[in-house]
Amino acid sequence: MSVINRLDASSVGFGEQLAQLLAYDETQDAQIERVVSEIIADVRARGDAAVLEYSRRFDGVQAESMAELEISQAQCQAALEGLPEEQRQALMKAAERIRRYHEHQKSEGWHYEEADGTVLGVKISPMDRVGLYVPGGKAAYPSSVLMNAVPAKVAGVQEVVMVTPTPGGEHNPLVLAAAAVAGVDRVLSIGGAQAVAALAYGTETIAQVDKIVGPGNAYVAEAKRRVFGVVGIDMIAGPSEILIICDGKTPADWIAMDLFSQAEHDELAQAILLCPDAAYLDEVEASIQRQLPNMSRREIIATSLANRGALILVKDLDEACEIANYVAAEHLEISVADAQPLVDKIRHAGAIFIGPYSSEALGDYCAGPNHVLPTSRTARFSSPLGVYDFQKRSSLIRVSQVGAATLGPIASSLAYGEGLQAHARSAEYRYKN
Amino acid sequence: MSVINRLDASSVGFGEQLAQLLAYDETQDAQIERVVSEIIADVRARGDAAVLEYSRRFDGVQAESMAELEISQAQCQAALEGLPEEQRQALMKAAERIRRYHEHQKSEGWHYEEADGTVLGVKISPMDRVGLYVPGGKAAYPSSVLMNAVPAKVAGVQEVVMVTPTPGGEHNPLVLAAAAVAGVDRVLSIGGAQAVAALAYGTETIAQVDKIVGPGNAYVAEAKRRVFGVVGIDMIAGPSEILIICDGKTPADWIAMDLFSQAEHDELAQAILLCPDAAYLDEVEASIQRQLPNMSRREIIATSLANRGALILVKDLDEACEIANYVAAEHLEISVADAQPLVDKIRHAGAIFIGPYSSEALGDYCAGPNHVLPTSRTARFSSPLGVYDFQKRSSLIRVSQVGAATLGPIASSLAYGEGLQAHARSAEYRYKN
Repeated sequence: MSVINRLDASSVGFGEQLAQLLAYDETQDAQIERVVSEIIADVRARGDAAVLEYSRRFDGVQAESMAELEISQAQCQAALEGLPEEQRQALMKAAERIRRYHEHQKSEGWHYEEADGTVLGVKISPMDRVGLYVPGGKAAYPSSVLMNAVPAKVAGVQEVVMVTPTPGGEHNPLVLAAAAVAGVDRVLSIGGAQAVAALAYGTETIAQVDKIVGPGNAYVAEAKRRVFGVVGIDMIAGPSEILIICDGKTPADWIAMDLFSQAEHDELAQAILLCPDAAYLDEVEASIQRQLPNMSRREIIATSLANRGALILVKDLDEACEIANYVAAEHLEISVADAQPLVDKIRHAGAIFIGPYSSEALGDYCAGPNHVLPTSRTARFSSPLGVYDFQKRSSLIRVSQVGAATLGPIASSLAYGEGLQAHARSAEYRYKN
Repeated sequence: MSVINRLDASSVGFGEQLAQLLAYDETQDAQIERVVSEIIADVRARGDAAVLEYSRRFDGVQAESMAELEISQAQCQAALEGLPEEQRQALMKAAERIRRYHEHQKSEGWHYEEADGTVLGVKISPMDRVGLYVPGGKAAYPSSVLMNAVPAKVAGVQEVVMVTPTPGGEHNPLVLAAAAVAGVDRVLSIGGAQAVAALAYGTETIAQVDKIVGPGNAYVAEAKRRVFGVVGIDMIAGPSEILIICDGKTPADWIAMDLFSQAEHDELAQAILLCPDAAYLDEVEASIQRQLPNMSRREIIATSLANRGALILVKDLDEACEIANYVAAEHLEISVADAQPLVDKIRHAGAIFIGPYSSEALGDYCAGPNHVLPTSRTARFSSPLGVYDFQKRSSLIRVSQVGAATLGPIASSLAYGEGLQAHARSAEYRYKN
């Protein structure tokens, strides 16, 4: 078995091969659906008591009250101060850069006045309260705490409530430190579907939030799906992906490592390279073979590359852009000397890393833009997580007396056309007597 | 039984009463879930053949091929030209005003350069192709065609594909005319879960879309829920609602008719009035009793007002605003002489109608802002449909060589902290040798 798939975009059946490579069908597990639906119903009915019971059962915590599951701001601050200096500085610099970038995303309301005095516009308000789910154990990423909480605070959300399970009562100090840096307002060591339900519906000690963001396991994802509509949720993420377009000039070892950096996330992660130079693809493949044995996560990387990775020979960089628009990758690296003409051709991608020095890893941690990005071709219709996900709009309509006489007849005519008499009358009252 | 509920915000248990009044739990119907899941699987497997078969079975159409279900641009144009002059003008003026308002919503990309030459920014692109669902029969609203299709075209969507079932082969000329005015690119007379599945996955004759918008019955809503993730969807709408804050100065007949204009949509629609003047509430109640018998949809209005409507006495207009923020109504009318101070206090509402001349009906048809608005308290976290729903963002990250040497160590430190060695190495390659 080869270390990574090799494809040729000019070969017959390539379209089919590519579609198969990308195919990722999240199967909904009926058993998970049933369990989650029961947990949610139970938390709705019994509140804190149910949350406590599930936390004891699933996370093995010993708490007798919700208060025992509260992690204080002082604890988070202490975790930050307890970090090695270099790590603490890295966390704070990353947060600062993420904050600076996201400040640019804040939307302002606007309005305009028409000749007759009618004013139309929009008012933009932050959500009041947001829940942030942070997985426990190994998959607890402090960078995700920053990427989710900082935009919410920049948007002006008053209260960001973080929930994170602590199986066995073990806290991850980097995660607590990130919460302190990001300005998280409240931290609870609860998790799973019970934490999602508590945030969505509220309990005696947890106020209902307006939106829940952050990654989680299959139970958390299913719980978010179920409470969608009661609260807002972010996208349910699929496996992480990188698509690299390279002109064959970037050192092959760099590109191989960029592919690894995606593949090391998990076996289902996807790393694909497009290049018009077959000899360069050989070089990258050789580099993969040489570097792989030295990687600490080599089993995961090897499985990911063998099953879902590919080195694809393309006719030219234009064809690479066409393929990139079809793939609509979460991360697109354009590792090309003169990248801008290619960037202009890209319509669909979560984040575009431009030029040989822009490795995806920089974007994952500290470049500034968000690392919560649309996966599984959803960049066709969705965007990176941002400040706009924590603000919402209200239309403003202030019709003048003269305006009501102009607009009224139009509304009335269309309302009668739709059989809605009261709509018509309501408009008519404003200009007829 | 009274014509409409009367509540007093100062009475004990008011919070509970209000919560009960607003409660709307959409029950998921297991039977509908099963049928829809089968239809979607069938359309994925058999494409056009399955769509045709379901259209014959459910809509009673006689078509032998998809081509027969295609409605040409010429047919839509003919429908427009065949309308009575006044109606045609109303439709075109409404479209023009909707277009003008939505032009203000277009987002532009931006970027900034840091001292070391690193450039960060965002690129904004329209979706390629969008599906618009329009219900058949009585609930076919031409205004909804405008409100959904115009923002998509303003966003720059290349192809807007409208699907609308025509049970018995009967077309609604106002709907086809609206499609012509809005610039819809393709119209197919198919509907139900089979139409949603065809748009979401594509068939031999229907290209896969990136997003599906527009209202539909329970089968359509469930189908949209199921294909979410494969394509984007808009919010699943609950019953329509209006909340009116009035100082008691607007003619009572106007306000009563505004309540009717919401209540006439369906029995579950909700119309609530808040006012600090008990005598005015009596006047409105009397007006409701007087005007109701003359309304063509009086049965629907009466049921809606009796079950879900309310006249609520408040202490003052400040308290009315607090209640409005809790309700987060789809439509909020502030029928008050000096409205601006109240508008400033509102954080959650889909659309705010300001002053006595701004009846909701004007906004439904032709003021300009969108009438597709968040219902059932979802204005806490979501926005009116807009151009932004048909555009998406790609982050731009172009790190300079110097920038890679500054950012690399930060990324590397955090990556090792998360146990992601390949991430660290990928960053290090850019500044170490």
